[in-house]
Amino acid sequence: MAKKLWGGRFKKKIDKDFFKFQKSINYDYKLAKYDVVHSSIHAAALEKTGILSELEKKKLVKALTDIHKKIKNKKFKYNKESEDIHTDIQNKVEKKIGKLALKLHSLRSRNDQIVFDEKSYCYDESGDISKFLESLLKSIDFLKKKYKKIKIVGYTHTQKAQPVFFSDYMDAFWHMLKRDQKRVMNFQKNIQVYIGAGALAGSSIKKAEYNKAIKEILRHWPEDSFFAVKPYANSLDNVSDRDFIIEFLSIIAITQMHLSRLAEDFILYSTKEFNFFNLPEEFCTGSSLMPQKKNPDFLELVRGYTGKIYGNLISILTMMKGLPLTYNRDMQLDKEPLFSSVSILQNELKIMAKFIRKVKLNTDIIKEALKDGQLYATKRADKLVREQNIPFREAHDIVGRAIKKQENDA
Amino acid sequence: MAKKLWGGRFKKKIDKDFFKFQKSINYDYKLAKYDVVHSSIHAAALEKTGILSELEKKKLVKALTDIHKKIKNKKFKYNKESEDIHTDIQNKVEKKIGKLALKLHSLRSRNDQIVFDEKSYCYDESGDISKFLESLLKSIDFLKKKYKKIKIVGYTHTQKAQPVFFSDYMDAFWHMLKRDQKRVMNFQKNIQVYIGAGALAGSSIKKAEYNKAIKEILRHWPEDSFFAVKPYANSLDNVSDRDFIIEFLSIIAITQMHLSRLAEDFILYSTKEFNFFNLPEEFCTGSSLMPQKKNPDFLELVRGYTGKIYGNLISILTMMKGLPLTYNRDMQLDKEPLFSSVSILQNELKIMAKFIRKVKLNTDIIKEALKDGQLYATKRADKLVREQNIPFREAHDIVGRAIKKQENDA
Amino acid sequence: MAKKLWGGRFKKKIDKDFFKFQKSINYDYKLAKYDVVHSSIHAAALEKTGILSELEKKKLVKALTDIHKKIKNKKFKYNKESEDIHTDIQNKVEKKIGKLALKLHSLRSRNDQIVFDEKSYCYDESGDISKFLESLLKSIDFLKKKYKKIKIVGYTHTQKAQPVFFSDYMDAFWHMLKRDQKRVMNFQKNIQVYIGAGALAGSSIKKAEYNKAIKEILRHWPEDSFFAVKPYANSLDNVSDRDFIIEFLSIIAITQMHLSRLAEDFILYSTKEFNFFNLPEEFCTGSSLMPQKKNPDFLELVRGYTGKIYGNLISILTMMKGLPLTYNRDMQLDKEPLFSSVSILQNELKIMAKFIRKVKLNTDIIKEALKDGQLYATKRADKLVREQNIPFREAHDIVGRAIKKQENDA
Amino acid sequence: MAKKLWGGRFKKKIDKDFFKFQKSINYDYKLAKYDVVHSSIHAAALEKTGILSELEKKKLVKALTDIHKKIKNKKFKYNKESEDIHTDIQNKVEKKIGKLALKLHSLRSRNDQIVFDEKSYCYDESGDISKFLESLLKSIDFLKKKYKKIKIVGYTHTQKAQPVFFSDYMDAFWHMLKRDQKRVMNFQKNIQVYIGAGALAGSSIKKAEYNKAIKEILRHWPEDSFFAVKPYANSLDNVSDRDFIIEFLSIIAITQMHLSRLAEDFILYSTKEFNFFNLPEEFCTGSSLMPQKKNPDFLELVRGYTGKIYGNLISILTMMKGLPLTYNRDMQLDKEPLFSSVSILQNELKIMAKFIRKVKLNTDIIKEALKDGQLYATKRADKLVREQNIPFREAHDIVGRAIKKQENDA
Repeated sequence: MAKKLWGGRFKKKIDKDFFKFQKSINYDYKLAKYDVVHSSIHAAALEKTGILSELEKKKLVKALTDIHKKIKNKKFKYNKESEDIHTDIQNKVEKKIGKLALKLHSLRSRNDQIVFDEKSYCYDESGDISKFLESLLKSIDFLKKKYKKIKIVGYTHTQKAQPVFFSDYMDAFWHMLKRDQKRVMNFQKNIQVYIGAGALAGSSIKKAEYNKAIKEILRHWPEDSFFAVKPYANSLDNVSDRDFIIEFLSIIAITQMHLSRLAEDFILYSTKEFNFFNLPEEFCTGSSLMPQKKNPDFLELVRGYTGKIYGNLISILTMMKGLPLTYNRDMQLDKEPLFSSVSILQNELKIMAKFIRKVKLNTDIIKEALKDGQLYATKRADKLVREQNIPFREAHDIVGRAIKKQENDA
Repeated sequence: MAKKLWGGRFKKKIDKDFFKFQKSINYDYKLAKYDVVHSSIHAAALEKTGILSELEKKKLVKALTDIHKKIKNKKFKYNKESEDIHTDIQNKVEKKIGKLALKLHSLRSRNDQIVFDEKSYCYDESGDISKFLESLLKSIDFLKKKYKKIKIVGYTHTQKAQPVFFSDYMDAFWHMLKRDQKRVMNFQKNIQVYIGAGALAGSSIKKAEYNKAIKEILRHWPEDSFFAVKPYANSLDNVSDRDFIIEFLSIIAITQMHLSRLAEDFILYSTKEFNFFNLPEEFCTGSSLMPQKKNPDFLELVRGYTGKIYGNLISILTMMKGLPLTYNRDMQLDKEPLFSSVSILQNELKIMAKFIRKVKLNTDIIKEALKDGQLYATKRADKLVREQNIPFREAHDIVGRAIKKQENDA
Repeated sequence: MAKKLWGGRFKKKIDKDFFKFQKSINYDYKLAKYDVVHSSIHAAALEKTGILSELEKKKLVKALTDIHKKIKNKKFKYNKESEDIHTDIQNKVEKKIGKLALKLHSLRSRNDQIVFDEKSYCYDESGDISKFLESLLKSIDFLKKKYKKIKIVGYTHTQKAQPVFFSDYMDAFWHMLKRDQKRVMNFQKNIQVYIGAGALAGSSIKKAEYNKAIKEILRHWPEDSFFAVKPYANSLDNVSDRDFIIEFLSIIAITQMHLSRLAEDFILYSTKEFNFFNLPEEFCTGSSLMPQKKNPDFLELVRGYTGKIYGNLISILTMMKGLPLTYNRDMQLDKEPLFSSVSILQNELKIMAKFIRKVKLNTDIIKEALKDGQLYATKRADKLVREQNIPFREAHDIVGRAIKKQENDA
Repeated sequence: MAKKLWGGRFKKKIDKDFFKFQKSINYDYKLAKYDVVHSSIHAAALEKTGILSELEKKKLVKALTDIHKKIKNKKFKYNKESEDIHTDIQNKVEKKIGKLALKLHSLRSRNDQIVFDEKSYCYDESGDISKFLESLLKSIDFLKKKYKKIKIVGYTHTQKAQPVFFSDYMDAFWHMLKRDQKRVMNFQKNIQVYIGAGALAGSSIKKAEYNKAIKEILRHWPEDSFFAVKPYANSLDNVSDRDFIIEFLSIIAITQMHLSRLAEDFILYSTKEFNFFNLPEEFCTGSSLMPQKKNPDFLELVRGYTGKIYGNLISILTMMKGLPLTYNRDMQLDKEPLFSSVSILQNELKIMAKFIRKVKLNTDIIKEALKDGQLYATKRADKLVREQNIPFREAHDIVGRAIKKQENDA
């Protein structure tokens, strides 16, 4: 067990099973790169308020910057015995620069760090999702253009309805995913990262001091993309706000729903019976028993992940239900579902963008399918209305009865 | 069974149990007032495209306007035997003006009407939710001002943490609900109501004709609040888009989560053991057995409704999973969960706004609770840091050990 | 507002919006027939313990029996102004026999009545579900026999796999639904209805007195089917136990999942493209726009209701999360989801049993589909193994490569 | 990428991102010990049907038995490059005994192995859960006995209701968890592990041959606890049945709900304000900011995990919704949620059993709390009924008004 950030008042040692049960380092290590930013700003703020000398601050920020570089270069390794990533980084700083590290955690609380880190994570990942969506939208455009003038059968109730352009069909998915992108970009834009809320009551560092510290650190930070950080608006709200996670998971859930519909359609259209689409082999697998099988596994897994992604959403919603103000340890469990949904969606989008470009249309079979006369029944009724001035409800009836007669005769 | 909008091709009568199972009039009657708007625009479009004469259009719009008035005056009664509200209105128009009514449903599909109606409903109701939130925010402000300088115990982990201002405490809820209001207003702003998508392939009426019809009807419509309607962007997407419902239900779910937290805190603070708050009797109930009981039923019901509101969200998400394009009958089942969540949240907000204003603080008991020395441990550690230049981790340890000793001595 | 069962300690009148918000009569009226049984047993117990005279008891039981008859004959009408069904019945008894009614609610609590009523409801309805399942199982057997020797295409991954008997295919659903029936029967068998728990601490009536009362009432009760009632085992647990509802809703959810799979398959097999099944028109509907459409609406609605039924389950689970012992008002909200899932499933099963009997196989099209050589690839590999002693992995490879060659040549 | 069990018909190499996306070895390795049993029975069946010689069978079973030993001794290491555990074991056997291994996968499918493995897993783990529950039940008994004659305040609506015995209070949880244990034992009893279903259509090995093979292998198997295996009842159902997972996750969800209620109560009763319980420090943690804090983290995490466990249930339910028969790749995603819920619950139960034994009652504070006169209001009303023959509703009113007067005077 590595050093902890608390313990003075405790008479008994922590139970080992419980320690294992409660530690979060095995997943919250993903927040490391945001945690060093929080610590750096905080170090600067401690200097502004007079608790650290300038030299002390510099040493701390230097140590933190070194860790940040390691993270960026994927050389950072967390200690599995640490309780959480905040403790782990604190311990690493202590290893580097000794006792001075003990001053770093003055006047702040992990409650504040966690929400800072998670918002930053959501900011970054929502940006990535937007980019992955962009790339999928382009693949859809590619396919639309490739089969520009092709008409296919349009369906309602999985029953042949009317002919539609393939490009309009693909464009329907384009519109869904475009809305998803708008939602995720709007979400990203509205994320407001705060600092300084302490455990719940705000730190004794003044907001003006924080503002100076934020400016100083973010300006010199070796990271290009960093976003606006502000001193907290309401400290009690800040440490117990998880809206952004639920909102993000809802947006992911809607996107996932769209992907599940696309998957369903493509599975259907690539059955031997429909046979409109030919799926790229690189994204299919075979059967260990049946040598002939080429299964649409990628699409099935996409459809199947809908369960997990809805489950992750309900998981956080349930976890937050009825929690008293302010921070409660329950909230630690927001991370795994968040990381899981983000990772699944990003993988799906990345692969789908490649997949879509390689889908081929079996144009001969599609043409054959379009010959079915019933696809034009609406047009016939339409014609009766426009040319013979028959009220539509009657024209509908006339055409409907003609179809009944035809089926009876057959 | 009332007249249906289809049936010509059918040889057999519909099964009675199935007819009952599938009809939606018992809930979709709520959409009546939007459906007549769709019909009026559509009638005007039919005239623009030459299928109706001007006189015919006028008669139809007049009949529809009359129905709209009835709806507004709460005199509209739907026929329980009708299949759905669209059929019911069509039948009512036929009753008024005879066979001409049969022309109304030319070149359009219920698929298009449903989504038009539902988006309009969401537009209206999200506006109302925003207003109810506004009123609750004002009640919170009222309470904040009433107990302006009062400090209360702040909690983390339901354990006494540090003193906070009551106004800051209430302000935390204010911030949550303000975010909710922003979300719901943003949602409303982004609703785009479309018309003309037909069943899936678009109507043969031109978009320009629709544009004229929209202008004509919405200008003269006896309704003040009507919003922008456009011809469809993608017809296949339009008839099978239910994003707006899921988005709305997610926003409602987050708001509900906040209310559940407020409820939990107020239940806790009004127990005999905490006794910080005195709840208004008008919103409590008694026990049929125990004469002394004054139970916080309103708060408990609010907390309990979280289940229903999460369930409604998961219900639509699940329903939409893996649906092939375009419209499928499954989608009919989006209405009950939507109406249910909207109605529950509006009632909660309305009552909560009254409730909050009448909450009283037991200031004597609160003062007593603030005397607990442990609430000031952080301040003591802070002082050691600032005055004696002790690293915080050590100061934390010193104060912690002092508390341990004190507890051992006690 | 009708008379309430509490109120003596209250100084202020209940808020009207809140009264409406909290009352449950509009749904818990469904429990009326069980509530009069509770009241009758309780009246008898009050006599055993000396609080009622024998005559008083008789008068009360008579009045309750009359109400029970009305309920059975569907002539019972609840007062919409009542708070709940328990209050409503109490008021009705008072109307019949005057002030004596005021003695009925001695030493008992609605907390005890609610759980008694709900368990009884679950007992009855689970029995009905078992019967509906039985009838559906018979319909499946009917169809299995009707097309006894027919082979159809068997699928994995919605891709043609191997030929299977239609009767084996239908038998798969039979097995699923048989497991469902076992689960629901096992559930029913384990329901234990208790009485006498009071609000939480048990009534001052002795268990022996309750036992006598139970015997007396259930023996003479004009109801045939009544089941074992016992004095409570643990009073605190009894009033706050909702396990049985969650268990019931889980069983319903699994059954619903099976129905959704059956629906999906039948939708698929009745598309024009598969065209293996011909669905009975009596359970389909048409399109208001497209005259040719015969849509599998029943199956789509069944598939769609999966959302609602999963939502109902999550609703109760969420509602019960973290509730302190014992009864809390949140628990009132268990009824609507329970009643909803029970009613949906029963309707689905009832209609499905009729539907299945009328499904027709397009045997010519099925035969044609079975000609696809790839369906026999596994058999070919099998033969290589059995006749030429080739290891299966190699035989799989040989057949697989032959198919690749064939596709390349085509 | 390690060797795969399929591929002959494929012209193109699998996409690397997709390969990573679809492989399951990183979680299904947990099924290794059941998979070797399946393989051993299958090897014996291949001999019975004449495809393997006795010597070949012996070699295969020997190789598999060696792997099984490694698993038991925790020396088994899976190859991270393998697609899944079935492939991994096949490859390991090949490494040991060469080409003969290629015969092992004759006439069987992973579809059959997966469900065999998962059912066996559920059998084992449900047994363990029952044991953990047993141990928790004993801890509760221990605490009941320790504070045998102590009365505490009983609550409804988190408001003081009536005095109850502490042992009755703890006994309420005992009853809940005992029901859970019954449910899980009943679940275990009903698990039926099948073999021989092939991909969907049954293997060409006869059931009698399977029966011999099962007998032979399970008798000699170095495992003590193995349970009944049978040849499949319906092959299509068998490969696509996941009922047992949903049922298991439902049972876990109900148990978790009970734990969340216990957690909530214990959090409440260990606040400074209630202060009835003193929680064991070994299961609490401190604050990084506030030196005085002793937080009930274990209980909070238990409460919080309710989200994950409900989410896991909804995840599988959603995943299975509307899946066509028979096996679909979506089903692969049943494993992570299953393993997650099982592991969380087992850890919670294990720690809770230790935790409960160390909870201490603050008997002085409890005694003080029992002095509140209002706790005895029901008794007073009861007395009026029994001694003065006042109808209870009136007695309730009299006591209620007395309390109102008292509060007004105060």
